[in-house]
Amino acid sequence: MLTIDQMRELSPAEARLLIREGKLDQMGSVADGYMQVNMVCLPEKYADDFREFCRRNPVPCPLVSETAVGDPTVVLDVQKHKLLENGNVATDIPKYCVYHGGDLVSVEKNIVEQWKENYVGFLIGCSFSFEGALHKAGFPSRYRIKGTVVSMYKTNIKLCPSGVFKGYYVVSMRPIKADKIEEVRKITSKYGQCHGSPIAWGYEEALEIGIKDIAKPDYGDPIEILEDEIPVFWGCGVTPQYALVEANLPEEVYSHHPGFPLVLDIHENDFFGL
Amino acid sequence: MLTIDQMRELSPAEARLLIREGKLDQMGSVADGYMQVNMVCLPEKYADDFREFCRRNPVPCPLVSETAVGDPTVVLDVQKHKLLENGNVATDIPKYCVYHGGDLVSVEKNIVEQWKENYVGFLIGCSFSFEGALHKAGFPSRYRIKGTVVSMYKTNIKLCPSGVFKGYYVVSMRPIKADKIEEVRKITSKYGQCHGSPIAWGYEEALEIGIKDIAKPDYGDPIEILEDEIPVFWGCGVTPQYALVEANLPEEVYSHHPGFPLVLDIHENDFFGL
Repeated sequence: MLTIDQMRELSPAEARLLIREGKLDQMGSVADGYMQVNMVCLPEKYADDFREFCRRNPVPCPLVSETAVGDPTVVLDVQKHKLLENGNVATDIPKYCVYHGGDLVSVEKNIVEQWKENYVGFLIGCSFSFEGALHKAGFPSRYRIKGTVVSMYKTNIKLCPSGVFKGYYVVSMRPIKADKIEEVRKITSKYGQCHGSPIAWGYEEALEIGIKDIAKPDYGDPIEILEDEIPVFWGCGVTPQYALVEANLPEEVYSHHPGFPLVLDIHENDFFGL
Repeated sequence: MLTIDQMRELSPAEARLLIREGKLDQMGSVADGYMQVNMVCLPEKYADDFREFCRRNPVPCPLVSETAVGDPTVVLDVQKHKLLENGNVATDIPKYCVYHGGDLVSVEKNIVEQWKENYVGFLIGCSFSFEGALHKAGFPSRYRIKGTVVSMYKTNIKLCPSGVFKGYYVVSMRPIKADKIEEVRKITSKYGQCHGSPIAWGYEEALEIGIKDIAKPDYGDPIEILEDEIPVFWGCGVTPQYALVEANLPEEVYSHHPGFPLVLDIHENDFFGL
Protein backbone atom coordinates (compact mmCIF):
# COMPACT_ATOMS: atom_id res chain seq x y z
CA MET A 1 0.00 0.00 0.00
CA LEU A 2 1.28 3.46 -0.92
CA THR A 3 1.95 6.16 1.69
CA ILE A 4 0.22 9.49 1.31
CA ASP A 5 3.48 11.07 0.09
CA GLN A 6 3.96 8.34 -2.51
CA MET A 7 0.41 8.93 -3.74
CA ARG A 8 0.95 12.70 -3.89
CA GLU A 9 3.97 12.21 -6.12
CA LEU A 10 2.40 9.83 -8.65
CA SER A 11 2.11 11.18 -12.16
CA PRO A 12 -1.43 11.12 -13.59
CA ALA A 13 -0.44 8.33 -16.02
CA GLU A 14 1.05 6.24 -13.19
CA ALA A 15 -2.05 6.79 -11.07
CA ARG A 16 -4.39 5.76 -13.91
CA LEU A 17 -2.33 2.63 -14.58
CA LEU A 18 -2.55 1.58 -10.90
CA ILE A 19 -6.29 2.24 -10.98
CA ARG A 20 -6.77 0.12 -14.10
CA GLU A 21 -4.86 -2.68 -12.36
CA GLY A 22 -7.08 -2.32 -9.29
CA LYS A 23 -4.15 -1.25 -7.09
CA LEU A 24 -5.33 2.23 -6.11
CA ASP A 25 -8.70 3.27 -4.83
CA GLN A 26 -8.16 6.50 -2.96
CA MET A 27 -8.09 9.66 -5.02
CA GLY A 28 -7.93 12.61 -2.58
CA SER A 29 -4.14 12.27 -2.18
CA VAL A 30 -3.23 11.33 -5.73
CA ALA A 31 -0.98 13.34 -8.09
CA ASP A 32 -1.00 16.65 -6.25
CA GLY A 33 -1.22 19.63 -8.56
CA TYR A 34 -3.02 17.80 -11.36
CA MET A 35 -6.62 18.39 -12.37
CA GLN A 36 -9.11 15.86 -11.12
CA VAL A 37 -12.61 15.67 -12.58
CA ASN A 38 -15.96 14.17 -11.73
CA MET A 39 -17.77 12.34 -14.50
CA VAL A 40 -21.28 11.70 -15.75
CA CYS A 41 -22.07 9.74 -18.90
CA LEU A 42 -25.44 10.01 -20.63
CA PRO A 43 -27.17 9.64 -23.99
CA GLU A 44 -26.21 12.41 -26.39
CA LYS A 45 -29.81 13.57 -26.77
CA TYR A 46 -29.59 15.08 -23.27
CA ALA A 47 -26.21 16.73 -23.92
CA ASP A 48 -27.49 20.23 -24.78
CA ASP A 49 -29.67 20.33 -21.68
CA PHE A 50 -26.77 19.12 -19.58
CA ARG A 51 -24.30 21.66 -20.99
CA GLU A 52 -26.73 24.47 -20.29
CA PHE A 53 -27.31 23.02 -16.80
CA CYS A 54 -23.55 23.33 -16.16
CA ARG A 55 -23.44 26.83 -17.61
CA ARG A 56 -26.25 27.92 -15.31
CA ASN A 57 -24.66 26.34 -12.23
CA PRO A 58 -20.93 26.90 -12.63
CA VAL A 59 -19.96 26.56 -8.98
CA PRO A 60 -21.24 23.03 -8.30
CA CYS A 61 -21.09 21.95 -11.99
CA PRO A 62 -17.99 23.51 -13.60
CA LEU A 63 -17.76 21.78 -16.97
CA VAL A 64 -14.09 21.19 -17.82
CA SER A 65 -14.38 18.98 -20.87
CA GLU A 66 -16.33 16.28 -22.73
CA THR A 67 -15.48 12.99 -24.34
CA ALA A 68 -16.18 12.32 -27.98
CA VAL A 69 -19.64 10.80 -28.47
CA GLY A 70 -19.26 7.03 -28.17
CA ASP A 71 -15.52 7.17 -27.43
CA PRO A 72 -14.28 7.49 -23.83
CA THR A 73 -10.64 7.55 -24.96
CA VAL A 74 -11.01 10.92 -26.67
CA VAL A 75 -11.34 13.87 -24.33
CA LEU A 76 -12.22 16.87 -26.43
CA ASP A 77 -9.97 19.77 -25.85
CA VAL A 78 -12.17 22.70 -24.81
CA GLN A 79 -9.22 24.62 -23.37
CA LYS A 80 -6.75 23.65 -26.16
CA HIS A 81 -4.80 21.57 -23.66
CA LYS A 82 -4.01 17.87 -23.82
CA LEU A 83 -6.18 16.47 -21.07
CA LEU A 84 -5.86 12.71 -21.29
CA GLU A 85 -3.10 10.77 -23.09
CA ASN A 86 -3.46 7.02 -23.45
CA GLY A 87 -6.36 7.25 -21.05
CA ASN A 88 -9.90 5.89 -21.00
CA VAL A 89 -12.71 7.54 -19.08
CA ALA A 90 -14.49 4.16 -18.99
CA THR A 91 -11.61 2.37 -17.17
CA ASP A 92 -9.42 4.92 -15.37
CA ILE A 93 -11.76 5.75 -12.50
CA PRO A 94 -11.58 3.42 -9.48
CA LYS A 95 -15.37 2.88 -9.15
CA TYR A 96 -18.38 3.69 -11.34
CA CYS A 97 -22.07 4.01 -10.46
CA VAL A 98 -24.70 2.59 -12.81
CA TYR A 99 -28.08 4.29 -12.46
CA HIS A 100 -31.38 3.30 -14.01
CA GLY A 101 -34.73 4.99 -13.51
CA GLY A 102 -33.37 7.04 -10.64
CA ASP A 103 -31.92 4.03 -8.79
CA LEU A 104 -28.31 2.95 -8.25
CA VAL A 105 -28.37 -0.52 -9.82
CA SER A 106 -24.68 -1.45 -9.48
CA VAL A 107 -21.13 -0.29 -8.76
CA GLU A 108 -18.60 -1.36 -11.42
CA LYS A 109 -14.81 -1.40 -11.84
CA ASN A 110 -15.22 -0.16 -15.41
CA ILE A 111 -18.02 0.71 -17.84
CA VAL A 112 -16.41 -0.37 -21.11
CA GLU A 113 -19.36 -2.59 -22.10
CA GLN A 114 -21.96 -0.06 -20.95
CA TRP A 115 -20.54 2.94 -22.87
CA LYS A 116 -22.65 2.76 -26.03
CA GLU A 117 -21.99 4.66 -29.24
CA ASN A 118 -24.61 7.33 -28.49
CA TYR A 119 -23.23 8.10 -25.02
CA VAL A 120 -21.11 11.13 -24.11
CA GLY A 121 -19.06 11.74 -20.96
CA PHE A 122 -18.94 15.09 -19.18
CA LEU A 123 -15.95 15.96 -17.01
CA ILE A 124 -16.63 18.35 -14.15
CA GLY A 125 -13.95 20.02 -12.01
CA CYS A 126 -13.27 18.40 -8.64
CA SER A 127 -12.13 20.03 -5.41
CA PHE A 128 -9.44 17.35 -5.08
CA SER A 129 -7.57 19.52 -7.60
CA PHE A 130 -6.82 22.08 -4.87
CA GLU A 131 -5.86 19.57 -2.17
CA GLY A 132 -2.21 19.91 -3.18
CA ALA A 133 -2.33 23.69 -2.81
CA LEU A 134 -4.03 23.44 0.59
CA HIS A 135 -1.47 20.87 1.71
CA LYS A 136 1.47 23.04 0.62
CA ALA A 137 0.01 26.07 2.38
CA GLY A 138 -0.19 24.16 5.65
CA PHE A 139 -3.80 22.97 5.48
CA PRO A 140 -3.59 19.28 4.62
CA SER A 141 -7.12 17.85 4.61
CA ARG A 142 -7.63 15.45 7.51
CA TYR A 143 -9.44 12.87 5.35
CA ARG A 144 -6.32 12.57 3.17
CA ILE A 145 -4.13 11.86 6.18
CA LYS A 146 -6.63 9.30 7.47
CA GLY A 147 -6.96 7.71 4.03
CA THR A 148 -10.74 8.13 3.99
CA VAL A 149 -13.10 9.82 1.51
CA VAL A 150 -14.05 13.50 1.92
CA SER A 151 -17.45 14.11 3.60
CA MET A 152 -20.18 15.16 1.17
CA TYR A 153 -23.73 16.33 1.89
CA LYS A 154 -26.93 17.00 0.00
CA THR A 155 -28.21 20.53 0.72
CA ASN A 156 -31.38 22.57 0.29
CA ILE A 157 -29.70 25.02 -2.13
CA LYS A 158 -31.65 24.93 -5.37
CA LEU A 159 -29.94 24.62 -8.74
CA CYS A 160 -31.09 26.53 -11.83
CA PRO A 161 -32.96 23.99 -13.94
CA SER A 162 -32.23 23.24 -17.59
CA GLY A 163 -34.49 20.92 -19.54
CA VAL A 164 -34.76 17.60 -17.69
CA PHE A 165 -32.09 18.55 -15.14
CA LYS A 166 -32.76 20.22 -11.80
CA GLY A 167 -32.09 19.55 -8.15
CA TYR A 168 -30.01 20.72 -5.25
CA TYR A 169 -26.33 21.41 -4.51
CA VAL A 170 -24.13 18.70 -3.09
CA VAL A 171 -21.20 20.10 -1.07
CA SER A 172 -17.91 18.72 0.20
CA MET A 173 -16.73 19.64 3.70
CA ARG A 174 -13.30 20.22 5.23
CA PRO A 175 -12.76 21.25 8.84
CA ILE A 176 -10.68 24.46 8.98
CA LYS A 177 -9.47 26.53 11.93
CA ALA A 178 -11.91 29.41 12.34
CA ASP A 179 -9.17 32.06 12.07
CA LYS A 180 -7.85 30.59 8.82
CA ILE A 181 -11.01 30.83 6.71
CA GLU A 182 -9.87 33.93 4.84
CA GLU A 183 -6.57 32.30 3.91
CA VAL A 184 -8.30 29.13 2.70
CA ARG A 185 -10.84 31.17 0.73
CA LYS A 186 -8.02 32.99 -0.98
CA ILE A 187 -6.18 29.78 -1.93
CA THR A 188 -9.22 27.98 -3.30
CA SER A 189 -10.70 31.03 -5.07
CA LYS A 190 -8.01 30.54 -7.73
CA TYR A 191 -9.57 27.20 -8.70
CA GLY A 192 -12.67 28.60 -10.36
CA GLN A 193 -13.37 25.52 -12.48
CA CYS A 194 -12.90 23.24 -9.48
CA HIS A 195 -15.64 24.89 -7.37
CA GLY A 196 -13.46 27.85 -6.30
CA SER A 197 -13.93 29.39 -2.88
CA PRO A 198 -16.31 27.88 -0.30
CA ILE A 199 -20.02 28.64 -0.51
CA ALA A 200 -20.76 28.41 3.23
CA TRP A 201 -18.99 27.86 6.55
CA GLY A 202 -19.77 27.43 10.23
CA TYR A 203 -22.34 25.35 12.09
CA GLU A 204 -25.10 27.93 11.72
CA GLU A 205 -24.77 28.08 7.94
CA ALA A 206 -24.59 24.28 7.82
CA LEU A 207 -28.07 24.17 9.34
CA GLU A 208 -29.22 26.96 7.00
CA ILE A 209 -28.21 24.94 3.94
CA GLY A 210 -30.04 21.91 5.27
CA ILE A 211 -27.25 19.82 6.84
CA LYS A 212 -28.80 18.52 10.03
CA ASP A 213 -26.08 16.14 11.19
CA ILE A 214 -22.50 16.86 10.14
CA ALA A 215 -21.42 13.49 11.53
CA LYS A 216 -23.57 11.74 8.90
CA PRO A 217 -22.47 12.69 5.38
CA ASP A 218 -24.66 11.56 2.46
CA TYR A 219 -21.54 10.46 0.53
CA GLY A 220 -17.99 9.66 1.65
CA ASP A 221 -16.85 9.21 5.25
CA PRO A 222 -17.44 11.23 8.42
CA ILE A 223 -14.48 13.25 9.71
CA GLU A 224 -13.61 14.68 13.12
CA ILE A 225 -13.95 18.45 13.58
CA LEU A 226 -11.68 19.80 16.34
CA GLU A 227 -12.79 22.40 18.84
CA ASP A 228 -11.01 25.34 17.18
CA GLU A 229 -12.26 24.33 13.72
CA ILE A 230 -15.47 24.95 11.82
CA PRO A 231 -16.93 23.00 8.89
CA VAL A 232 -16.28 24.70 5.54
CA PHE A 233 -18.38 23.76 2.50
CA TRP A 234 -17.43 23.80 -1.17
CA GLY A 235 -19.55 23.11 -4.24
CA CYS A 236 -19.13 19.44 -5.15
CA GLY A 237 -19.04 17.61 -8.48
CA VAL A 238 -21.39 14.96 -7.14
CA THR A 239 -24.08 17.59 -7.75
CA PRO A 240 -24.59 16.74 -11.46
CA GLN A 241 -24.71 13.03 -10.59
CA TYR A 242 -27.44 13.72 -8.05
CA ALA A 243 -29.31 15.81 -10.66
CA LEU A 244 -28.94 12.95 -13.13
CA VAL A 245 -30.50 10.56 -10.63
CA GLU A 246 -33.32 13.02 -9.92
CA ALA A 247 -34.00 13.39 -13.67
CA ASN A 248 -35.12 9.76 -13.56
CA LEU A 249 -34.28 9.12 -17.21
CA PRO A 250 -35.57 5.97 -18.90
CA GLU A 251 -32.05 5.08 -20.09
CA GLU A 252 -29.16 3.77 -18.03
CA VAL A 253 -26.69 6.51 -17.05
CA TYR A 254 -23.24 6.31 -15.45
CA SER A 255 -21.02 8.32 -13.17
CA HIS A 256 -17.85 8.12 -11.12
CA HIS A 257 -18.48 6.88 -7.58
CA PRO A 258 -18.63 9.91 -5.22
CA GLY A 259 -15.10 10.56 -3.95
CA PHE A 260 -13.41 8.67 -6.82
CA PRO A 261 -12.78 11.13 -9.66
CA LEU A 262 -10.55 10.89 -12.74
CA VAL A 263 -7.06 12.42 -12.79
CA LEU A 264 -6.17 14.29 -15.98
CA ASP A 265 -2.74 15.00 -17.47
CA ILE A 266 -3.01 18.73 -17.14
CA HIS A 267 -1.31 20.55 -14.28
CA GLU A 268 -3.15 23.27 -12.40
CA ASN A 269 -0.45 25.77 -13.37
CA ASP A 270 -1.28 25.24 -17.04
CA PHE A 271 -5.03 24.94 -16.62
CA PHE A 272 -5.51 27.96 -14.36
CA GLY A 273 -2.41 29.92 -15.37
CA LEU A 274 -1.30 29.98 -11.71
CA MET B 1 -48.04 60.00 -23.75
CA LEU B 2 -46.76 57.32 -26.10
CA THR B 3 -48.78 54.22 -26.97
CA ILE B 4 -47.24 50.81 -26.36
CA ASP B 5 -46.61 50.42 -30.12
CA GLN B 6 -44.88 53.79 -30.29
CA MET B 7 -42.67 52.78 -27.36
CA ARG B 8 -41.83 49.43 -28.96
CA GLU B 9 -40.62 51.20 -32.09
CA LEU B 10 -38.36 53.76 -30.43
CA SER B 11 -34.67 53.41 -31.21
CA PRO B 12 -32.43 53.07 -28.14
CA ALA B 13 -31.02 56.58 -28.75
CA GLU B 14 -34.53 58.07 -29.03
CA ALA B 15 -35.60 56.28 -25.85
CA ARG B 16 -32.55 57.52 -23.92
CA LEU B 17 -33.16 61.10 -25.09
CA LEU B 18 -36.77 60.98 -23.91
CA ILE B 19 -35.59 59.56 -20.57
CA ARG B 20 -32.99 62.31 -20.13
CA GLU B 21 -35.75 64.87 -20.82
CA GLY B 22 -37.99 63.20 -18.24
CA LYS B 23 -40.57 62.22 -20.88
CA LEU B 24 -40.41 58.43 -20.55
CA ASP B 25 -40.53 56.38 -17.42
CA GLN B 26 -41.71 52.94 -18.45
CA MET B 27 -39.10 50.57 -19.82
CA GLY B 28 -40.78 47.19 -20.34
CA SER B 29 -42.22 48.21 -23.71
CA VAL B 30 -39.32 50.28 -25.00
CA ALA B 31 -37.24 49.56 -28.13
CA ASP B 32 -38.25 45.95 -28.68
CA GLY B 33 -35.35 43.75 -29.74
CA TYR B 34 -32.66 45.86 -28.09
CA MET B 35 -30.65 44.78 -25.06
CA GLN B 36 -31.71 46.25 -21.75
CA VAL B 37 -29.49 46.07 -18.70
CA ASN B 38 -29.75 46.50 -14.98
CA MET B 39 -27.07 48.57 -13.28
CA VAL B 40 -25.13 48.76 -10.05
CA CYS B 41 -22.38 51.29 -9.38
CA LEU B 42 -19.85 50.78 -6.60
CA PRO B 43 -16.30 51.68 -5.53
CA GLU B 44 -13.66 49.99 -7.67
CA LYS B 45 -12.14 48.20 -4.67
CA TYR B 46 -15.16 45.86 -4.65
CA ALA B 47 -15.05 45.26 -8.41
CA ASP B 48 -13.13 41.96 -8.37
CA ASP B 49 -15.45 40.49 -5.73
CA PHE B 50 -18.45 41.67 -7.72
CA ARG B 51 -17.21 40.27 -11.04
CA GLU B 52 -16.62 36.89 -9.40
CA PHE B 53 -20.07 37.13 -7.77
CA CYS B 54 -21.58 37.51 -11.26
CA ARG B 55 -19.47 34.66 -12.65
CA ARG B 56 -20.66 32.36 -9.86
CA ASN B 57 -24.33 33.34 -10.30
CA PRO B 58 -24.79 33.76 -14.05
CA VAL B 59 -28.56 33.25 -14.15
CA PRO B 60 -29.64 36.07 -11.83
CA CYS B 61 -26.44 38.15 -12.38
CA PRO B 62 -25.39 37.83 -16.05
CA LEU B 63 -22.67 40.45 -16.42
CA VAL B 64 -22.94 42.05 -19.87
CA SER B 65 -20.48 44.91 -19.56
CA GLU B 66 -18.85 47.52 -17.34
CA THR B 67 -18.27 51.24 -17.54
CA ALA B 68 -14.79 52.72 -17.37
CA VAL B 69 -13.80 53.53 -13.80
CA GLY B 70 -14.99 57.06 -13.05
CA ASP B 71 -16.62 57.55 -16.44
CA PRO B 72 -20.27 56.50 -17.01
CA THR B 73 -20.13 57.57 -20.66
CA VAL B 74 -17.67 54.82 -21.59
CA VAL B 75 -19.13 51.34 -21.66
CA LEU B 76 -16.26 48.91 -22.04
CA ASP B 77 -16.73 46.56 -24.88
CA VAL B 78 -16.53 43.01 -23.43
CA GLN B 79 -18.23 41.50 -26.46
CA LYS B 80 -16.43 43.70 -29.03
CA HIS B 81 -19.74 45.36 -29.83
CA LYS B 82 -20.62 49.03 -29.56
CA LEU B 83 -22.98 49.09 -26.61
CA LEU B 84 -23.69 52.75 -25.90
CA GLU B 85 -23.14 55.65 -28.29
CA ASN B 86 -23.52 59.21 -26.98
CA GLY B 87 -25.00 57.71 -23.86
CA ASN B 88 -24.41 58.15 -20.16
CA VAL B 89 -25.13 55.45 -17.60
CA ALA B 90 -25.50 58.19 -14.97
CA THR B 91 -28.34 60.00 -16.78
CA ASP B 92 -30.05 57.59 -19.22
CA ILE B 93 -31.95 55.49 -16.71
CA PRO B 94 -35.36 56.86 -15.65
CA LYS B 95 -34.81 56.44 -11.87
CA TYR B 96 -31.80 55.63 -9.69
CA CYS B 97 -31.59 54.27 -6.14
CA VAL B 98 -29.02 55.67 -3.73
CA TYR B 99 -28.10 53.23 -0.95
CA HIS B 100 -26.00 53.86 2.14
CA GLY B 101 -25.21 51.41 4.92
CA GLY B 102 -27.83 48.99 3.60
CA ASP B 103 -30.62 51.61 3.44
CA LEU B 104 -32.28 53.25 0.46
CA VAL B 105 -31.55 56.92 1.17
CA SER B 106 -33.04 58.52 -1.96
CA VAL B 107 -34.38 58.01 -5.47
CA GLU B 108 -32.78 60.31 -8.07
CA LYS B 109 -33.36 61.32 -11.71
CA ASN B 110 -29.62 61.06 -12.36
CA ILE B 111 -26.43 60.30 -10.44
CA VAL B 112 -24.02 62.60 -12.28
CA GLU B 113 -22.83 64.31 -9.08
CA GLN B 114 -22.64 61.05 -7.13
CA TRP B 115 -20.55 59.08 -9.65
CA LYS B 116 -17.07 59.71 -8.22
CA GLU B 117 -13.81 58.95 -10.02
CA ASN B 118 -13.25 55.67 -8.17
CA TYR B 119 -16.70 54.29 -9.00
CA VAL B 120 -17.44 51.67 -11.67
CA GLY B 121 -20.80 50.67 -13.16
CA PHE B 122 -21.75 47.06 -13.86
CA LEU B 123 -24.38 46.29 -16.50
CA ILE B 124 -26.37 43.12 -15.97
CA GLY B 125 -28.69 41.54 -18.55
CA CYS B 126 -32.42 42.27 -18.10
CA SER B 127 -35.38 40.08 -19.01
CA PHE B 128 -36.99 43.10 -20.72
CA SER B 129 -34.62 42.19 -23.56
CA PHE B 130 -36.80 39.21 -24.46
CA GLU B 131 -40.15 41.00 -24.12
CA GLY B 132 -40.10 41.77 -27.85
CA ALA B 133 -39.57 38.10 -28.73
CA LEU B 134 -42.37 37.01 -26.39
CA HIS B 135 -44.65 39.67 -27.85
CA LYS B 136 -43.91 38.62 -31.45
CA ALA B 137 -44.52 34.96 -30.59
CA GLY B 138 -47.98 35.76 -29.23
CA PHE B 139 -47.13 36.11 -25.53
CA PRO B 140 -47.20 39.86 -24.88
CA SER B 141 -46.58 40.42 -21.17
CA ARG B 142 -49.71 41.74 -19.44
CA TYR B 143 -47.78 44.36 -17.44
CA ARG B 144 -46.62 45.93 -20.72
CA ILE B 145 -50.16 46.23 -21.99
CA LYS B 146 -51.30 47.71 -18.67
CA GLY B 147 -48.32 50.09 -18.57
CA THR B 148 -47.22 48.87 -15.15
CA VAL B 149 -43.90 47.46 -13.89
CA VAL B 150 -43.24 43.70 -13.94
CA SER B 151 -43.79 41.91 -10.59
CA MET B 152 -40.56 41.00 -8.78
CA TYR B 153 -40.05 38.93 -5.64
CA LYS B 154 -37.29 38.12 -3.18
CA THR B 155 -36.87 34.35 -2.83
CA ASN B 156 -35.19 31.86 -0.50
CA ILE B 157 -32.80 30.61 -3.24
CA LYS B 158 -29.26 31.20 -2.00
CA LEU B 159 -26.60 32.80 -4.19
CA CYS B 160 -22.99 31.62 -4.24
CA PRO B 161 -21.09 34.19 -2.18
CA SER B 162 -18.01 36.07 -3.37
CA GLY B 163 -16.10 38.29 -0.96
CA VAL B 164 -18.50 40.81 0.59
CA PHE B 165 -21.38 39.79 -1.71
CA LYS B 166 -23.97 37.15 -0.89
CA GLY B 167 -27.73 36.90 -0.63
CA TYR B 168 -30.75 35.45 -2.36
CA TYR B 169 -32.22 35.41 -5.86
CA VAL B 170 -34.75 38.02 -6.89
CA VAL B 171 -37.09 36.80 -9.64
CA SER B 172 -39.46 38.46 -12.10
CA MET B 173 -42.85 36.87 -12.79
CA ARG B 174 -45.05 36.66 -15.88
CA PRO B 175 -48.38 34.80 -16.00
CA ILE B 176 -48.31 32.22 -18.81
CA LYS B 177 -50.94 29.74 -19.97
CA ALA B 178 -50.06 26.38 -18.39
CA ASP B 179 -49.92 24.60 -21.77
CA LYS B 180 -47.53 27.18 -23.24
CA ILE B 181 -44.70 26.84 -20.73
CA GLU B 182 -42.52 24.74 -23.05
CA GLU B 183 -42.89 27.25 -25.87
CA VAL B 184 -42.01 30.17 -23.60
CA ARG B 185 -39.04 28.25 -22.15
CA LYS B 186 -37.75 27.65 -25.64
CA ILE B 187 -38.05 31.32 -26.65
CA THR B 188 -36.37 32.71 -23.55
CA SER B 189 -33.65 30.05 -23.37
CA LYS B 190 -31.96 31.84 -26.28
CA TYR B 191 -31.38 34.87 -24.07
CA GLY B 192 -28.69 33.37 -21.84
CA GLN B 193 -27.20 36.66 -20.75
CA CYS B 194 -30.64 38.06 -19.97
CA HIS B 195 -31.55 35.30 -17.45
CA GLY B 196 -32.48 32.73 -20.11
CA SER B 197 -35.24 30.24 -19.44
CA PRO B 198 -37.38 30.39 -16.28
CA ILE B 199 -36.05 28.93 -13.04
CA ALA B 200 -39.43 27.92 -11.55
CA TRP B 201 -43.14 27.87 -12.44
CA GLY B 202 -46.49 27.09 -10.86
CA TYR B 203 -48.03 27.93 -7.49
CA GLU B 204 -46.40 25.04 -5.68
CA GLU B 205 -42.88 26.01 -6.78
CA ALA B 206 -43.66 29.64 -5.91
CA LEU B 207 -44.20 28.55 -2.31
CA GLU B 208 -41.09 26.36 -2.45
CA ILE B 209 -38.91 29.31 -3.45
CA GLY B 210 -40.36 31.37 -0.62
CA ILE B 211 -43.02 33.49 -2.35
CA LYS B 212 -45.91 33.49 0.10
CA ASP B 213 -48.22 35.98 -1.59
CA ILE B 214 -48.01 36.39 -5.34
CA ALA B 215 -50.35 39.38 -5.15
CA LYS B 216 -47.71 41.29 -3.17
CA PRO B 217 -44.46 41.62 -5.14
CA ASP B 218 -41.42 43.02 -3.33
CA TYR B 219 -40.64 45.26 -6.31
CA GLY B 220 -42.79 46.48 -9.23
CA ASP B 221 -46.57 46.15 -9.45
CA PRO B 222 -48.96 43.23 -8.87
CA ILE B 223 -50.49 41.64 -11.98
CA GLU B 224 -53.60 39.56 -12.54
CA ILE B 225 -53.11 35.82 -13.17
CA LEU B 226 -56.01 34.30 -15.14
CA GLU B 227 -57.51 30.92 -14.34
CA ASP B 228 -55.74 29.03 -17.15
CA GLU B 229 -52.40 30.66 -16.38
CA ILE B 230 -49.65 29.92 -13.89
CA PRO B 231 -46.94 32.22 -12.55
CA VAL B 232 -43.58 31.72 -14.28
CA PHE B 233 -40.39 32.99 -12.63
CA TRP B 234 -37.16 34.20 -14.25
CA GLY B 235 -33.87 35.25 -12.67
CA CYS B 236 -33.94 39.02 -12.20
CA GLY B 237 -31.24 41.68 -12.42
CA VAL B 238 -32.47 43.26 -9.21
CA THR B 239 -30.62 40.37 -7.51
CA PRO B 240 -27.20 42.09 -7.52
CA GLN B 241 -28.79 45.28 -6.20
CA TYR B 242 -30.32 43.34 -3.33
CA ALA B 243 -26.91 41.69 -2.67
CA LEU B 244 -25.33 45.14 -2.71
CA VAL B 245 -27.80 46.34 -0.08
CA GLU B 246 -27.19 43.21 2.02
CA ALA B 247 -23.40 43.78 1.82
CA ASN B 248 -24.03 46.87 3.92
CA LEU B 249 -20.95 48.67 2.60
CA PRO B 250 -19.72 51.80 4.38
CA GLU B 251 -19.69 53.76 1.10
CA GLU B 252 -22.69 55.05 -0.86
CA VAL B 253 -23.63 52.76 -3.76
CA TYR B 254 -26.07 53.24 -6.64
CA SER B 255 -28.35 51.23 -8.85
CA HIS B 256 -31.15 51.54 -11.37
CA HIS B 257 -34.60 51.58 -9.75
CA PRO B 258 -36.11 48.05 -10.00
CA GLY B 259 -38.07 47.87 -13.27
CA PHE B 260 -36.23 50.80 -14.87
CA PRO B 261 -33.19 49.45 -16.72
CA LEU B 262 -30.92 51.03 -19.33
CA VAL B 263 -31.47 50.39 -23.05
CA LEU B 264 -28.26 49.74 -25.03
CA ASP B 265 -27.59 50.25 -28.74
CA ILE B 266 -27.01 46.61 -29.47
CA HIS B 267 -29.74 44.50 -31.03
CA GLU B 268 -30.45 41.00 -29.70
CA ASN B 269 -29.67 39.54 -33.12
CA ASP B 270 -26.13 40.88 -32.91
CA PHE B 271 -25.61 40.20 -29.22
CA PHE B 272 -26.95 36.66 -29.19
CA GLY B 273 -26.37 35.80 -32.84
CA LEU B 274 -30.09 34.96 -33.20
